[in-house]
Amino acid sequence: MNLNERIAEYRGKIERELGWILADSPANENVPPKLLEALRYSVLDGGKRIRPILVLASTEAVGGDRDAAIPAACAIELIHTFSLIHDDLPCMDDDDLRRGKPTSHKVFGEAIALLSGDALFALAFEELMSTPSDDWKVRAAASEIARSAGLLGMVGGQVADMESSHKDVTLADVQAIHRRKTGALIEASVVVGGIIGGGTEEQIASLREYGNAIGLAFQIQDDILDIIGNSEKTGKSQGSDARNEKATYPQIVGLDRAREMAAEAVERGQAALDAFDSRADVLRLIAKYIVNREA
Amino acid sequence: MNLNERIAEYRGKIERELGWILADSPANENVPPKLLEALRYSVLDGGKRIRPILVLASTEAVGGDRDAAIPAACAIELIHTFSLIHDDLPCMDDDDLRRGKPTSHKVFGEAIALLSGDALFALAFEELMSTPSDDWKVRAAASEIARSAGLLGMVGGQVADMESSHKDVTLADVQAIHRRKTGALIEASVVVGGIIGGGTEEQIASLREYGNAIGLAFQIQDDILDIIGNSEKTGKSQGSDARNEKATYPQIVGLDRAREMAAEAVERGQAALDAFDSRADVLRLIAKYIVNREA
Repeated sequence: MNLNERIAEYRGKIERELGWILADSPANENVPPKLLEALRYSVLDGGKRIRPILVLASTEAVGGDRDAAIPAACAIELIHTFSLIHDDLPCMDDDDLRRGKPTSHKVFGEAIALLSGDALFALAFEELMSTPSDDWKVRAAASEIARSAGLLGMVGGQVADMESSHKDVTLADVQAIHRRKTGALIEASVVVGGIIGGGTEEQIASLREYGNAIGLAFQIQDDILDIIGNSEKTGKSQGSDARNEKATYPQIVGLDRAREMAAEAVERGQAALDAFDSRADVLRLIAKYIVNREA
Repeated sequence: MNLNERIAEYRGKIERELGWILADSPANENVPPKLLEALRYSVLDGGKRIRPILVLASTEAVGGDRDAAIPAACAIELIHTFSLIHDDLPCMDDDDLRRGKPTSHKVFGEAIALLSGDALFALAFEELMSTPSDDWKVRAAASEIARSAGLLGMVGGQVADMESSHKDVTLADVQAIHRRKTGALIEASVVVGGIIGGGTEEQIASLREYGNAIGLAFQIQDDILDIIGNSEKTGKSQGSDARNEKATYPQIVGLDRAREMAAEAVERGQAALDAFDSRADVLRLIAKYIVNREA
């Protein structure tokens, strides 16, 4: 099986599990139908699944059992989806399009969109707790995920980002914002994959460095795509950062230097994997993909 | 130490821990100041702390180490606070007053209120993971809390409640809504206290029955207070259920029958504690307090 086939296999496992979590099963019989519909709308349609694929690829890199990491992978995707739904709300970015479709609040109204985000957060931890693995690993993974989503991670970064709007910010500010807003959850993805897979402390530290580097590259590329991207491919309204006066890499260092910085970050990510054998090849491929993607 | 002193002692421990979590400590140095301010505003001021007190009282009832249950107690209070902030938002109940003060979005704006709720959810799980206890207990507690907050718990109940507005609902509907919306987290509080305290399966089942019963009594009393309560004491806008056309117990069965039902539920809760010794006396006192409170 070549690397792309492996990634497709991972994506298939993740889609199946996400579909099962939100299925018309007896377990969901008492969930209000509109809530379930809103959750399916946001979770089951589109999405590159980069974070959960990173979880499984990291479990593979340390030689662990990938199937045991599926609940953790899905938990991280659910948290990512929750953050997208809340970010799109009128009181936040007020976006109408996400993954090429109307955003959740446009379809279901603000209240259901808000609550479906909240539900995803809870569901993520429920799912994580179902991990068929040692209690200490599940606990360490939960700790990592909660930290990456919280005050010093995703939510804290989102607040810092909002506060930076319409202000002069430096490159260091933008880096600090994005390390939390998007970087923390990407870093958590690879760390959690390493933990569930039974990686050594040294391996997990290397995975963290890899995650930190590609998280940075990912954000820079996102900012670049917001300027030069084709909204048909990205599925987002093009130029929304500029409209919201968000601080971005290209805006601060220019498009050319931003591209160089992304490439440097990818190189740093690859170097962090030096001590790994060919089982880390999926991670190596993802690092390359991150700066070559068009969406 | 009499029972009221014990409750005061519990409250003191909880307040100290919550204050410490949100303190001006090096750990919070990089949290955006406005976010931290919004969190303190909602978490540290007022609040009866019924849920976290229930956690510690249940740990005591099974003869466990109450100090080990403090993080779990605070985690549940943080989740409760998150739900209040989101419930008050304009797209939800659009309430201006909470615990006698302007609601979070009135003070900090909608975006910060939304994000501070999200942050509290993450912080709750971070805090829970710091529990100085066996990994399996922490995992079981996390599972219980996530379930009680999610699709079949608090958030699911909130959606069902919204959908019941402006509709004819039966007593069974109202019970189903409130068992999730407020009952699930109260039940989780006593179950988690029992788990961390090392209770037997039988004890935990009894605690669950107790929690289920007093959760019901609590909600009925809340509905009653919304009608007859003094908004100076409750700190909420009086009559807000009627304004929002929320389904309530007094509305369906009348005020007198609602009072009877609350008393019956408290009795059921007390009966569930029959097999416990005097270490469950704080739980017994709380059951009585729930229907006697004026706020």
